[in-house]
Amino acid sequence: MKVLLKFVLPVCSGIVLAVLSVTVSAFDVLPEVAPAPVDNPVTPAKVELGKQLFFDQRLSVNGTVSCNSCHSVMANGTDNRPVSVGVFDKRGGRSAPTVWNAAFLSVQFWDGRAASLEDQARGPILADVEMGMPSEAAVVARLQQIPGYVTQFEAVFGGKDSLTYDNVARAIATFERTLITPDSAVDRHLKGDKSALSTAAKRGMKLVEKLGCIACHTGPNYAGPANLPVGQGFYQKFPTYPSEYDKQYGLKADPGRYEVTGNDVDKHMWRVPTLRNVALTAPYFHNGSVPTLDEAVRVMARAQLNTVLKDAEVSDIVAFLNGLSGEFPAITMPRLPETPNSTLLKK
Amino acid sequence: MKVLLKFVLPVCSGIVLAVLSVTVSAFDVLPEVAPAPVDNPVTPAKVELGKQLFFDQRLSVNGTVSCNSCHSVMANGTDNRPVSVGVFDKRGGRSAPTVWNAAFLSVQFWDGRAASLEDQARGPILADVEMGMPSEAAVVARLQQIPGYVTQFEAVFGGKDSLTYDNVARAIATFERTLITPDSAVDRHLKGDKSALSTAAKRGMKLVEKLGCIACHTGPNYAGPANLPVGQGFYQKFPTYPSEYDKQYGLKADPGRYEVTGNDVDKHMWRVPTLRNVALTAPYFHNGSVPTLDEAVRVMARAQLNTVLKDAEVSDIVAFLNGLSGEFPAITMPRLPETPNSTLLKK
Repeated sequence: MKVLLKFVLPVCSGIVLAVLSVTVSAFDVLPEVAPAPVDNPVTPAKVELGKQLFFDQRLSVNGTVSCNSCHSVMANGTDNRPVSVGVFDKRGGRSAPTVWNAAFLSVQFWDGRAASLEDQARGPILADVEMGMPSEAAVVARLQQIPGYVTQFEAVFGGKDSLTYDNVARAIATFERTLITPDSAVDRHLKGDKSALSTAAKRGMKLVEKLGCIACHTGPNYAGPANLPVGQGFYQKFPTYPSEYDKQYGLKADPGRYEVTGNDVDKHMWRVPTLRNVALTAPYFHNGSVPTLDEAVRVMARAQLNTVLKDAEVSDIVAFLNGLSGEFPAITMPRLPETPNSTLLKK
Repeated sequence: MKVLLKFVLPVCSGIVLAVLSVTVSAFDVLPEVAPAPVDNPVTPAKVELGKQLFFDQRLSVNGTVSCNSCHSVMANGTDNRPVSVGVFDKRGGRSAPTVWNAAFLSVQFWDGRAASLEDQARGPILADVEMGMPSEAAVVARLQQIPGYVTQFEAVFGGKDSLTYDNVARAIATFERTLITPDSAVDRHLKGDKSALSTAAKRGMKLVEKLGCIACHTGPNYAGPANLPVGQGFYQKFPTYPSEYDKQYGLKADPGRYEVTGNDVDKHMWRVPTLRNVALTAPYFHNGSVPTLDEAVRVMARAQLNTVLKDAEVSDIVAFLNGLSGEFPAITMPRLPETPNSTLLKK
């Protein structure tokens, strides 16, 4: 733990340090099942309903954007662009994080303003630059016009008043809890398959430990501990050390979690993002300003560890990070419920 | 055939009449396999590649629109709105037809300007108001930046120069040939299951025969004969009889096939659309101006058969048309090939 703490102490909150003391493994295997809140257990019918909602463009004001538009489950759970495109060609302010393995993050959104997947799912549907629905009531009113949703909400949540915005979020979160990418080369390596990683990737693995990357990128999702009490996030200041990259990539333009709390201590604090599938989820950082993984590695070493990496070190770390690309399970497409004989979107 | 010809003679072309003489069954069962051109046989790998391309938003200029955005395979193969929304929130001029069972249409597009699914697939990618790519070369150049596509095109079509725009269209068309919805209640009825249709639907079935709807809505897709020589379409003038609906729904604003041929005889001629899944594909007609199926039935009776239907007749015909909703097969989501460690969409 010595190496870990060397880099964690200056920037982490008390909560995080307390938890770190019980997180003794630097590299964890991804669990096969994601934890779910007591009041929102996972059931097959709820997963199916959530999948339909996740892919349904009718959850956006003009019927053009679904959750999947920016968090593409068919790809790597994101849209691989700096910031996403919402309804009416509007742009978001931060890069879309991947939905794959999001169930293992301590908190949701780059600034951690959502304590759970349920909380997170409530946001984009109503965000002006994302799906743009005017209100929770408008979402419910629209879904009530789709008979297949009405019957499914009743079956899944029980009762005639079960088509609520809260339950929309619960269903979507439940589907998201199934989005897990096991069996990456790193996972297989940790399970004992010593041929899973290349020699370069093994060198990279040692390097991220030695350099201290795993001070934050630890736990099953390589995004910090996943077993924090609900609502408590694993944050890190970024950039910690000033460098030429701050200007080049505009790294300090966004105050991060400060926008949520208004506390000076939260300026440029961010929830630590996952390293799983990181090789597939370019571009990088909260503003998506860095287009390649090798450059992202250089920026992180300089900005967080005050280290300038040699090209060979970058190459080895990238080889290791490629080893965190998991297996994406086959998923059957949802059938989106119909509006028989009638038209929901009038223009 | 007497009833048929009564309504067909005034408006159909010589080609159509010649074929009608061999199309003796008014109601056909949907085949389980769609015909494919000799030079583009269906293979599993080509279906898989086509499925990826069909769902890939990167085929649009700003990475926001895929074929599936307007022809939703997860729903009824269309977007259930009057006209579709393309890149930069642009609107199309005609309503998106369903992609389900499109393989059984004589020609593609409302005006029949594409002789095959392959020809059709070439259009929307380059259309300014749809996917907006500037040129065939730009599409190929973009796909060449995605390693998983390069290897698949080589494997499917053979050779290093196989990533071509023609082959993009061939792959998409091949996937579309698998989009078949068998076992509708009407199909089961025709196969001998006399309990498949309700009494009302059976009355409706007799009515569409008696009224003459099946003069055009015949064949396996209820869209005219499917066995025409390549490039020869099954067209109909719409509206044939003037009525108050012309103004109410703007039915004559668009000259239809005349825009393709410039021949006066093609003014307001349209490829006959399928009745399969018609209950699920509102709104109706080339301009999507009629939002409900019962109103569409009234308009068709008045505009094509010079008949004003009673409410009970409309209800029976709608019951029959609901019986043409088929079984949508389960489809596994494609995995869209990645751009590892790098960013394709720069903004």
